[in-house]
Amino acid sequence: MNDKTFLMIPGPTPVPESVMLEIAKHPIGHRSSEFSSILKEVYENLKYVFQTKNDVFMFTSSGTGAMCAALENLVNEGDNVLCLSLGNFGNRWAKIAESRGAKVEKIEVEAGEVIEPDVLRKRLAEDKEKKIKIVTLTHSETSTGAANDIKTLCSIIREHGALSVVDGVTSVCAMPVKTDEWGIDVLVSGSQKGFMIPPGLAFLTANERAWKVYEECRHPSFYFDWAAHKKAVQGDTTPFTPAVNLIVGLREALRMIKEEGIENMNERHRRHAMVLRKALRAINLELLVKEDKNASWAITSILPPEGISVPDIRSGMKKNYDIVVANGQNQLKDKIFRMGTLGFVSDRDLIMAVGSLEAVLNKLGHKFELGAGVRTVIQALGEEI
Amino acid sequence: MNDKTFLMIPGPTPVPESVMLEIAKHPIGHRSSEFSSILKEVYENLKYVFQTKNDVFMFTSSGTGAMCAALENLVNEGDNVLCLSLGNFGNRWAKIAESRGAKVEKIEVEAGEVIEPDVLRKRLAEDKEKKIKIVTLTHSETSTGAANDIKTLCSIIREHGALSVVDGVTSVCAMPVKTDEWGIDVLVSGSQKGFMIPPGLAFLTANERAWKVYEECRHPSFYFDWAAHKKAVQGDTTPFTPAVNLIVGLREALRMIKEEGIENMNERHRRHAMVLRKALRAINLELLVKEDKNASWAITSILPPEGISVPDIRSGMKKNYDIVVANGQNQLKDKIFRMGTLGFVSDRDLIMAVGSLEAVLNKLGHKFELGAGVRTVIQALGEEI
Repeated sequence: MNDKTFLMIPGPTPVPESVMLEIAKHPIGHRSSEFSSILKEVYENLKYVFQTKNDVFMFTSSGTGAMCAALENLVNEGDNVLCLSLGNFGNRWAKIAESRGAKVEKIEVEAGEVIEPDVLRKRLAEDKEKKIKIVTLTHSETSTGAANDIKTLCSIIREHGALSVVDGVTSVCAMPVKTDEWGIDVLVSGSQKGFMIPPGLAFLTANERAWKVYEECRHPSFYFDWAAHKKAVQGDTTPFTPAVNLIVGLREALRMIKEEGIENMNERHRRHAMVLRKALRAINLELLVKEDKNASWAITSILPPEGISVPDIRSGMKKNYDIVVANGQNQLKDKIFRMGTLGFVSDRDLIMAVGSLEAVLNKLGHKFELGAGVRTVIQALGEEI
Repeated sequence: MNDKTFLMIPGPTPVPESVMLEIAKHPIGHRSSEFSSILKEVYENLKYVFQTKNDVFMFTSSGTGAMCAALENLVNEGDNVLCLSLGNFGNRWAKIAESRGAKVEKIEVEAGEVIEPDVLRKRLAEDKEKKIKIVTLTHSETSTGAANDIKTLCSIIREHGALSVVDGVTSVCAMPVKTDEWGIDVLVSGSQKGFMIPPGLAFLTANERAWKVYEECRHPSFYFDWAAHKKAVQGDTTPFTPAVNLIVGLREALRMIKEEGIENMNERHRRHAMVLRKALRAINLELLVKEDKNASWAITSILPPEGISVPDIRSGMKKNYDIVVANGQNQLKDKIFRMGTLGFVSDRDLIMAVGSLEAVLNKLGHKFELGAGVRTVIQALGEEI
């Protein structure tokens, strides 16, 4: 049976039918008044989701494009950039900074762990000459499922005086990200995550402190240039021909997000992630992120039981139940598998996913009380933990 | 009546229903074997369309992204770049080169004119020290509808030793672009043009000579990095999460292009552009590009008749016939209007467009023999000029 795939990877994520139907419409001219009015609404609603009074720029690109849009408009050759890394996507910040000739220092943690505020506080206290210009952070690290306390980390960075540049690719929509209130200087995200639309759009917002650094950037990016995008946003347009169909879909998705309410949407993600963690433990699975307080609300990393391989679990889920779960990346390949509960995910999806995983693990010989996972999901959802 | 818009702008262009239906499918995982096999076919067919044995890279971006992907992987600060400009998009090359700190020299022509090979030959002959590293060109200049003889220009550049970097955004599919045979070093294009899919994807191919220059680039682009894309193409994947839905649509569009045959597709565009030019002259309209040999096969720029305004023509076409034609850009705004015959355009579309334009101009008081335009279209199409 085809056409019944359910994506539990950390992006692309499931897309609502009403959004797909918008995307399926023939493209309209990107310089038409009809499209301008769509952009006006989209730009306005993006500010709601990003919880900022500043403009939110939209790029036709992958999420990585928005990461480039952050650093390539800020970094000059020789600048000191401190990268706090929880894994692959934390390391990506470092690579982008290096590609622009920055002097990069990394604080790295073991897979599944997070940056302890004290570690950052200590490092920044040592920087008496204020050489560190930018600190990059990941909110929800897609490769491990660990999530930093960015509120605290950004306040420490603000105290030092460096700019905080935050990867919110899998966190915006799924977790609270109070851009202005928490003093996040630059925040980026991507469309195929909590935004519930297919991949191809990415977002960035920057505050006044960041703009001052931008103004000193000798070779800002052309394609991702902030000034060009600011001018465009203010004229309800885009600097270059954008992915028109995806933007029409985004308008619909943003309406759904507003209707649900961003806090309710965050809470739905918290509930699903925590219920999933509880259920996985109930069927004797070990989680990569040990403590619930350090866990992403978007993606959960799970160690395979002794003697059972990640590829067997993934192919059992795909072949028998048409559910796609992700492998680990790089050195975590075949060491963990990852289940996303990101975007357009309902309670019933969680029951289905945990039940299907139980079936697959049971067949592969894992020892646990069959039914304990789904029972836990039902009970925990009922308790609205 | 809604939902019957016909786009005659130079992008987005009309999209076949079979392509839209592919795009309307729920996204699949971009690291799945199913998606790899789609990419394998797409990469192979892109080589056919680009007429090259080299890899064709695909970016999730606007066409301008691919222009950045060209220069940001080649230019170092202080490099000499010669930009041959026919208008806005020729000037865009210069801006991108400048954003990377290049020393830019421009050869510009009047709107509607093209670069005379002798002018380029003379300038390059003066560069005895071979300081000029890169020459940028536009094949079909979208802002004017003029088209350079890139075969001749690229051979002159090759003789000098500089790299030729060609904007084929509106020309690939619509006009012959024999990348390898003509010795084009770097060629870029975009999806919402001859490729018959919505905006959001862009393409680049580079030959060995270009790769040598890339290897000396001190700060190649991260998002558009050639090495990352080469590795990805060779593994039937993409470096970052791509616009999955557009790529699934592209697979279908490339199948249609192959079925029609690239030479036949070029010829269809030539025929439509030349028939349109003949018909426009028959209803007493003046064309910006005087000589047929300098005219783009994708887009035609037309001067409004004395006393009739471009906005009136555009709004008449839109309101009464739901046909979107483009205004001029920048200094050409309200001085010309532009009709695209790019991508998924049939003989019957041409009859409809010319007939509708006749109706609008007649109502606006333009003096001409009513019916002469459509008669010319019918006759000229019949003659297969």
